[in-house]
Amino acid sequence: MPKFMLSVFFYPKSIAIIGATADPKKFGNAVTNNVLKNKNLTSKVYLVSHGSKEIEGLNTYNSILDISNAIDIAIILVPANVVDSVIDQCIEKQVKGIIIVTSGFGEIDEEGKRKEKKIVYKCKEAGIRVIGPNCVGIQNVDIGLNASFIQTPPQGNVSMISQSGSFGCAVFYQMERDVFGCSKFANIGNGVDVTFDEFLSFFTHDANTKIICIYIETLSNGRKFYEKLKEIAPKKPVIVLKGGKTTTGMLAANSHTGSIASNYRIFKTAMIQAGAIMCENVSDFISAIKTISFISPPEGEHVGILTNSGGNAVFFGDNVYKFNLKLAEFSDTLKEKISPHLISLVKKINPLDMIGVAEERQYYNVAREMFEDPGIDIVVGSVVIPPFLGMKSDEHFRGLIRAWNETGRKKPLIPLFLFSEGFEELKELAKKEKVPIFYTPHEAAYAINLLINRKKFLNRKINS
Amino acid sequence: MPKFMLSVFFYPKSIAIIGATADPKKFGNAVTNNVLKNKNLTSKVYLVSHGSKEIEGLNTYNSILDISNAIDIAIILVPANVVDSVIDQCIEKQVKGIIIVTSGFGEIDEEGKRKEKKIVYKCKEAGIRVIGPNCVGIQNVDIGLNASFIQTPPQGNVSMISQSGSFGCAVFYQMERDVFGCSKFANIGNGVDVTFDEFLSFFTHDANTKIICIYIETLSNGRKFYEKLKEIAPKKPVIVLKGGKTTTGMLAANSHTGSIASNYRIFKTAMIQAGAIMCENVSDFISAIKTISFISPPEGEHVGILTNSGGNAVFFGDNVYKFNLKLAEFSDTLKEKISPHLISLVKKINPLDMIGVAEERQYYNVAREMFEDPGIDIVVGSVVIPPFLGMKSDEHFRGLIRAWNETGRKKPLIPLFLFSEGFEELKELAKKEKVPIFYTPHEAAYAINLLINRKKFLNRKINS
Repeated sequence: MPKFMLSVFFYPKSIAIIGATADPKKFGNAVTNNVLKNKNLTSKVYLVSHGSKEIEGLNTYNSILDISNAIDIAIILVPANVVDSVIDQCIEKQVKGIIIVTSGFGEIDEEGKRKEKKIVYKCKEAGIRVIGPNCVGIQNVDIGLNASFIQTPPQGNVSMISQSGSFGCAVFYQMERDVFGCSKFANIGNGVDVTFDEFLSFFTHDANTKIICIYIETLSNGRKFYEKLKEIAPKKPVIVLKGGKTTTGMLAANSHTGSIASNYRIFKTAMIQAGAIMCENVSDFISAIKTISFISPPEGEHVGILTNSGGNAVFFGDNVYKFNLKLAEFSDTLKEKISPHLISLVKKINPLDMIGVAEERQYYNVAREMFEDPGIDIVVGSVVIPPFLGMKSDEHFRGLIRAWNETGRKKPLIPLFLFSEGFEELKELAKKEKVPIFYTPHEAAYAINLLINRKKFLNRKINS
Repeated sequence: MPKFMLSVFFYPKSIAIIGATADPKKFGNAVTNNVLKNKNLTSKVYLVSHGSKEIEGLNTYNSILDISNAIDIAIILVPANVVDSVIDQCIEKQVKGIIIVTSGFGEIDEEGKRKEKKIVYKCKEAGIRVIGPNCVGIQNVDIGLNASFIQTPPQGNVSMISQSGSFGCAVFYQMERDVFGCSKFANIGNGVDVTFDEFLSFFTHDANTKIICIYIETLSNGRKFYEKLKEIAPKKPVIVLKGGKTTTGMLAANSHTGSIASNYRIFKTAMIQAGAIMCENVSDFISAIKTISFISPPEGEHVGILTNSGGNAVFFGDNVYKFNLKLAEFSDTLKEKISPHLISLVKKINPLDMIGVAEERQYYNVAREMFEDPGIDIVVGSVVIPPFLGMKSDEHFRGLIRAWNETGRKKPLIPLFLFSEGFEELKELAKKEKVPIFYTPHEAAYAINLLINRKKFLNRKINS
């Protein structure tokens, strides 16, 4: 087997959609539309349909065998009972990869498991790799290939492998909100052939993939995955979320992909040992991806925080304790440098509560001093957006970003905007400047903890 | 002292704003604008200003003593060094209540503590109650009184007492997003006179207040608060969040309101014993308020879940385990009743994964059967909004709400829309129909756990 043969799925020269249809109430239509939507896609697309003569101006074929050109990948959307015969035609056509979107296999019953095993066996014999069945498809956002029935996410550097298609879809919604982007996406569904470790291998060598995030319910060949993870983790961050950690979750996982989830504790320990960033829930998973997407790990561990809200500083303080973070002690030099920017009421201690009157100017000047201070490694800009004194809702963010940019982004900036998700102007700025926004003290402290742990992991790798 | 004398703060016949100004960069302007913005406010408003002759078309007075009419409450915004003399004038004028917005007292140093104590002593002698200093003010949204420098929240049934003003402001942002509303709000700031328990007393008898939520950093007279809480908790839910739970949080609290936070563990145990709903962080605080705002506690504990996303069901399952919830087992009768609405692939087990093709019709029919089933006490409608097959982004929500309405809202509906905060149409529907939306499996399971615990608490109260 060629080493990076998964590339055929992400960079196909030609695609056949088998089960394409003009009926908008069918997945065969959704995938067809998604693939054809991008007029600049260089992959040649062929539609195989029994019901529709023409779809989106393209003539259809009755069978993949009627197509004269060679086909790299076939996407199968026909009903479950005819998948097997379509597979035979794909083998005859010598396609290189098959994505079976159709469901009704191993996730249903033992008979379904036997059917999908039979398919894989045949394809393996013929040197064809299979993704699915029971999946939403795959995407390569870099080249504008959406070979799935879910929406196209914003383009970026995060590649995702998800056992659940709908979770991929949900993460894409969150990507839009948290302004990070996707390079490649694969939903493995029942995962009968191509394995998580093979995707890891492929993404290791994929230049556009800077971060890998994985949603796993069941891992079939754990040892191989562990070894691959160990190899890649020092080069590219790998963020892992496990569903079905508990008996009740497992029960749901069982009905979902037809397999029993493995023991979570053992799994988690192994993942961390191999260098993965393990997340305990969907919210932390998103926080981890956006943190790693935008911020490099700090050199040291000392946190400096400036705030216009005492309350927010108190909440953050509780999280400093929870995550065992280190608050910097302000040096006399720093106190002297920030003094001119503060009103007399302000106590020069960390967290620095500049109270509600603090505006862009204070945030810029004080953050800048903190970034330049040798005793501070990470700067938390805590804000409750002031609805008073004519302040602009994004001015504090602007001040923080300017200070960050002018000091060369050498230290992490953690913008903590309590409950400010309704402010679209913040998001626009975040997108433009490639800065994350954290909306709760937990999220901000979680991000810092993650960055520090990542740094420690990288240091251990260098020293070992 | 009259029993409900706090009412003078929330229903003042006349208000004097001392330190009113036309300068938009001052809090005296922000409060003045907020008070005057509501042209229907029945309270008579008087402005006392040294710098501005006229503000918003109102002539100003040089001193509160120049006002011929009686004054119920005075809001003080003058600089800290002249607060004392202004207080003397307020005493002479025989106002009933004073809100000191001005900061620079006990939160700064010992000298400040002495100053504020002196003020309280004088006012007590004169029978005047004091809120503040160092506060954003108070609001009575029901009558359109915004006597604060923060924004007016949407009107509703939640009354809030917050030690931090900016946290109040942040919660209001979240109220807009989570479509619940506020009746009355008070920020106690340094809290030198009126205590948490007095607010509790007042809200007990306030008809518009159905839910009380409290943010505490330091509690001065814990015993009284405990007793008052015990009395009110069976009648109205009281949701409590404590900031400064840890040494690091305490440090920040110290710099914020000039006091040391008390031992959290003891505090928490006492609060729960008294019947409060204790929240561990700001996110759970919001989840608790929106849950209690919209949903009555269930009769039993059995949860039924319908979903179009296996992944979301797996995550929810893990949270079922975490919160020790009980999944209902579907009866044969229920299986028979839901069968006609499901495609053949669907396994009739709980969680019921109707897969991605499920649309409004399925959600309506199946949810309705679940609501009517005697074996199910709570219905979770889990959705990842499908971006395919021409489905409308709010159709599943519509189906769920219709089923809930037609069954008389007798059992809790928990809509779990994974990462769907970007869908404004959901929020509009939630607002119109008075339904909450939960965006993560944790939030949904947290809500169920809270409702069940509330029911158990109420049952114990009835039986004891």
